[in-house]
Amino acid sequence: MSDHFEVLSKCQEARAGILRTAHGTVETPVFMPVGTQATVKSLSSGDLETLGARIILANTYHLAMRPGHELIAGLGGLHRFMAWPAAILTDSGGFQVFSQSGRRTIDEDGVTFQSHVDGSTQRLTPESAMAIQAALGSDIAMAFDECPPSDAEPAVITKAMERTTRWARRCLEAEAAPGQLRFGVVQGGTSIELRRAHLAEIAGLSFDGLALGGLSVGEPPEVMHAVVAHVAPLLPADRPRYLMGVGRPQDVLAGIAAGIDMFDCVMPTRNARNGHLFVPAGHLNIANTRYRDDPRPLHEACPCEACRRYSRGYLSHLFRSKEILYYRLATVHNVQYYLNIVRAARQAIVEGRFAAYAAEQTALMEAGE
Amino acid sequence: MSDHFEVLSKCQEARAGILRTAHGTVETPVFMPVGTQATVKSLSSGDLETLGARIILANTYHLAMRPGHELIAGLGGLHRFMAWPAAILTDSGGFQVFSQSGRRTIDEDGVTFQSHVDGSTQRLTPESAMAIQAALGSDIAMAFDECPPSDAEPAVITKAMERTTRWARRCLEAEAAPGQLRFGVVQGGTSIELRRAHLAEIAGLSFDGLALGGLSVGEPPEVMHAVVAHVAPLLPADRPRYLMGVGRPQDVLAGIAAGIDMFDCVMPTRNARNGHLFVPAGHLNIANTRYRDDPRPLHEACPCEACRRYSRGYLSHLFRSKEILYYRLATVHNVQYYLNIVRAARQAIVEGRFAAYAAEQTALMEAGE
Repeated sequence: MSDHFEVLSKCQEARAGILRTAHGTVETPVFMPVGTQATVKSLSSGDLETLGARIILANTYHLAMRPGHELIAGLGGLHRFMAWPAAILTDSGGFQVFSQSGRRTIDEDGVTFQSHVDGSTQRLTPESAMAIQAALGSDIAMAFDECPPSDAEPAVITKAMERTTRWARRCLEAEAAPGQLRFGVVQGGTSIELRRAHLAEIAGLSFDGLALGGLSVGEPPEVMHAVVAHVAPLLPADRPRYLMGVGRPQDVLAGIAAGIDMFDCVMPTRNARNGHLFVPAGHLNIANTRYRDDPRPLHEACPCEACRRYSRGYLSHLFRSKEILYYRLATVHNVQYYLNIVRAARQAIVEGRFAAYAAEQTALMEAGE
Repeated sequence: MSDHFEVLSKCQEARAGILRTAHGTVETPVFMPVGTQATVKSLSSGDLETLGARIILANTYHLAMRPGHELIAGLGGLHRFMAWPAAILTDSGGFQVFSQSGRRTIDEDGVTFQSHVDGSTQRLTPESAMAIQAALGSDIAMAFDECPPSDAEPAVITKAMERTTRWARRCLEAEAAPGQLRFGVVQGGTSIELRRAHLAEIAGLSFDGLALGGLSVGEPPEVMHAVVAHVAPLLPADRPRYLMGVGRPQDVLAGIAAGIDMFDCVMPTRNARNGHLFVPAGHLNIANTRYRDDPRPLHEACPCEACRRYSRGYLSHLFRSKEILYYRLATVHNVQYYLNIVRAARQAIVEGRFAAYAAEQTALMEAGE
């Protein structure tokens, strides 16, 4: 039905597909590294190419605050600004605005808040969120939604859902950048009933893809898995499905199993900087003394620069010395890990053995923790 | 006379030569990027290869304190530890020990000081400094010298010179790593007379190269240039000549003009991190507001990754946002600048036009400041 997305293969609910964007084709399922401030922290666009990333996420809120979307537009748009020729999805800014600690006031028109950069009063509305994303020139723009706190009462969640639906309609009326796709966001907390209700509303609108928002915001993983397992298969099959902000590698595999096509999370990049490095058997904490004189690479079979050239001992030294190079090598490794896990999942779907793959990988991950 | 060094071409006092080390041949004059803690800050060994570096400097003191030379030796030596296949020169640790602020006591045998890492009491002697450098497996080890303060009285400088000579003899009696070259250090402050006297002592010993130490430690550049111009031509012509810790690009050119073959300095790397980026017409300070929306690369003709892919506007954004990527791109650029300046100097020497090259470049640099 849609010409920008095609499911090529299914294995139970899991899907292998193709997403066509104005900046290239993306094989799904896909993990999008997070480039908050027009860089995936510590990585250059060349590093991302080497890693084989084909789509990244950038944060509308952060870029609007600094350096400003007009400035980026003046320099030729976000792709040119960060010298990244492949696809970019921008979030709407909603999540940052709603989760930041400063004062903010919500009204039917939008949200007033304070910039984390200079404390100035700022405003974001469905229209301005879409206008900023159009100025940035991202390939996929997300609708501006209201994100209630994870522990909100059902009545609060319902109100946020209803407002999100009204805002979604306004987002679709805003002008998009040429070739820019627009995704709607399904809210509803951890209630299957609320999720189904909101899904019915959002799926009825002419979005190019649908996302599950408001998950992985503090609820236990089993609860999140249960919601995704119930709701993802109900999302329109002919459009890409995106699980926002998820998650641990096993959460990503659970999402794929439920039929999710797209993921993003700061976990690989943030954890890398904290010393948490992913390996097939869970992870290792490079701060551990045992790695100081360990001549082995992080993982023998990993093709990343950190594993091809350096020992755990060297990475341990860089980490302890707070050397800048540590952050890049650790990030390269963790992003490679995520991309490979998802690439291998796609292959397993195509070959009809995804359930076995996911079970095996998840057991390894859980055993190592 | 020496088989590890050959002067191929001279242009007045300036020399183009070849230095053969256990890890490859180095064309001189050469600038050695500083890799204090087994990484040139923010760069991987792959980055250094891309930049065309063939020799780097590493700091004996820092590596002995953390992670420890025994640990590095156990992991196969410094080259393997940092995955750097080309040449490494290690300093002796003397400069760090003498310039650090904590308590230290000097006696005829060596120096007792406190570790900057954990405050523990440590001791460095000519023998242990050479043993550490042998354990690291550097290609060039520096003799352990006494570095008096830059404003020391002549009597103090003379005493330090005499002790440096006695220590130099002890350094030469210590065992070297296989193929490791050893360089002696000429002290003498800014006094031509003292420099000549110490040079005569050190040149009489069987070092593979000679260095001028204790310069660029606070004296005005003209004073340093005058000392180098007088003393460098008196250093044995058949051995490589190394001007330690120098300096600004124009200081390097002045050193080459005086017949110096090797340089090292933290300026390109440290200044990069502070926003000071070298361009042929002096430098630009990326913190300046004017670069926020500047679509041009730092320098059109520069072949480095920062200039090939990114605008000043993007670098300005990364700098203002304190993004880790800024430090790497800025360092890549500044190191490329230094390597190119010195490579072009070598070419100019070979083509018999060094004086004109140096005058033209220096005028450009000075005009831009």
